[in-house]
Amino acid sequence: MDLPVPSSAVMSAQAAGEDALATLTTLVRADLEACNRLIVERMQSPVALIPQLAAHIVAAGGKRLRPLLTLASARLAGYRGDRHVALAACVEFIHTATLLHDDVVDESALRRGQASANALFGNKPSVLVGDFLFARAFQVMVQDGSLDVLRILADASATIAEGEVLQLVIQNDTGSTEAQYLEVIEGKTAALFAAATEVGAVVASCPPEQQQALRAYGHNLGIAFQLVDDALDYSAEQERLGKTVGDDFREGKITLPVLLAFARGNAEEQTFWRRTIEERDQREGDLARAIALMQKHHAFVDTVGRARDYGDKALAALDRFPESEWKRAMAGVVGFCISRAR
Amino acid sequence: MDLPVPSSAVMSAQAAGEDALATLTTLVRADLEACNRLIVERMQSPVALIPQLAAHIVAAGGKRLRPLLTLASARLAGYRGDRHVALAACVEFIHTATLLHDDVVDESALRRGQASANALFGNKPSVLVGDFLFARAFQVMVQDGSLDVLRILADASATIAEGEVLQLVIQNDTGSTEAQYLEVIEGKTAALFAAATEVGAVVASCPPEQQQALRAYGHNLGIAFQLVDDALDYSAEQERLGKTVGDDFREGKITLPVLLAFARGNAEEQTFWRRTIEERDQREGDLARAIALMQKHHAFVDTVGRARDYGDKALAALDRFPESEWKRAMAGVVGFCISRAR
Repeated sequence: MDLPVPSSAVMSAQAAGEDALATLTTLVRADLEACNRLIVERMQSPVALIPQLAAHIVAAGGKRLRPLLTLASARLAGYRGDRHVALAACVEFIHTATLLHDDVVDESALRRGQASANALFGNKPSVLVGDFLFARAFQVMVQDGSLDVLRILADASATIAEGEVLQLVIQNDTGSTEAQYLEVIEGKTAALFAAATEVGAVVASCPPEQQQALRAYGHNLGIAFQLVDDALDYSAEQERLGKTVGDDFREGKITLPVLLAFARGNAEEQTFWRRTIEERDQREGDLARAIALMQKHHAFVDTVGRARDYGDKALAALDRFPESEWKRAMAGVVGFCISRAR
Repeated sequence: MDLPVPSSAVMSAQAAGEDALATLTTLVRADLEACNRLIVERMQSPVALIPQLAAHIVAAGGKRLRPLLTLASARLAGYRGDRHVALAACVEFIHTATLLHDDVVDESALRRGQASANALFGNKPSVLVGDFLFARAFQVMVQDGSLDVLRILADASATIAEGEVLQLVIQNDTGSTEAQYLEVIEGKTAALFAAATEVGAVVASCPPEQQQALRAYGHNLGIAFQLVDDALDYSAEQERLGKTVGDDFREGKITLPVLLAFARGNAEEQTFWRRTIEERDQREGDLARAIALMQKHHAFVDTVGRARDYGDKALAALDRFPESEWKRAMAGVVGFCISRAR
């Protein structure tokens, strides 16, 4: 993928390269291990199929990016207790529940390079175990006892569902706007990133402006993350990450690379997009042509450029905090999210 | 359907006949209207498909039995405020979310005599709007601000999902036990009935033994309700209620009438059940034969008899309260639930 010159702020963050996530993971290791133990412990149920199916997706080697953000945000905000561990597990449960339901909705066969839960266990248990994990997250939050945390994650859960429904509504419609696309990714991705970081700030009881700054960091990081994800879907790099290239194309999903290539295309090209995305009449060679058109119109470069802009906003939000290893590691995560699109 | 002689306690309750639910509905009319307004208000979203789909199921003329129980329980327990109205709406949102997911899981074409949401809008929005309503319920509970209520409904939500998964696990298995069947219906039905009545008691801040009594009333009523439902699935009465006869049979669902007919059947009959329920090899005339075998072995009579026993327990739980029109109306609801199986 052809990348534009990075902005200076992101460039310094990106210098840490892909190791940035590893740096944060190392820094937060004890908390993360406690969180992983709690995840396994709290996904148990007398109904054996529930932990079996949940383990398949929870143990499939995800990055634990969202719970990492909760753990790191709490520490950056000066928290010294251990409530953040259980709340990070709640964030991961909600994320896992949405993944299970997404895979049913998208009819995905793969997740993180392995057979998806719906492909392996069927749609029915995937829907129901998603419901269980969602309920379990709220049980754990109730045990923690903070109404603020419950509010943040209930709000995020509603916003995620709204984003997912909107994504269905605009699917296959090349007349969708960039504003609608942004609303979709703010809902389906940024809402939980923002909630994950805000929850960390709230348990730390840091000043309101720092809580808002951590929320802004998560929100902007989430948008950057999804923009890069949507570019990656058309990139060979995707295969290295254990995903299929062109899933979004085959589903007729409206993402920024499609919207940019469509808007900048001539009449013949727009006819191609309408046939493949709206009518979902796809033939051999169509995916390759889609990628070629996106390259011709700089759709990847501009999508990643947009991600950089949001990454810069995420970095700026960290200005509210004094220098620390936590701050450097969280800045590094911004670089990590964007450097995936190399 | 051939009914056994009712026990005296249930008989007096049943004397009120089907009007019992109408009596309670009248008694609680102002609260119920406020609750219905709140349901419509709180299912709104900028994403228009959400209220469209939700309205289809919420407005489809359900009995609002669960929110009625919350409203009535609060009043029976002496509550004079209005918090119970919003919490009754939460109970209905959770119920509606589970209906949407159930219909996807069961591939149902009908719900309350109309095309089901999944048949009309597709499985994908049904899953996601279910998620939205579930999250919205928790948002409304957070606004109410009671951690006790949040705990009760988060616990119920997890138990419902466990019951539904267990139902999938034992589906098509004629070797399932009555204990497993009871665990399924305690989860998928009784848990929300028990939570609905307990929430009413909790907002009323009545003494702990009355809270437990109202929870026991809801729990036992829920089991009785589901037992009757499972008998009705094989009854012509079902059509009057706008449902198809034999849905459970076609899905190979393990319910008490099947378990009783199987356990009491001879070798040839057990072969019939294995073919139709386990192998789901169903031919013309099989449903009629299933019904005939159930009648031969008194499977309906005994299922409804079991429902009566739980109904008696529900009535006994009301002994903790002095006589009042609320108590009489709630006793009447027990009669209503059982009299559906006439």
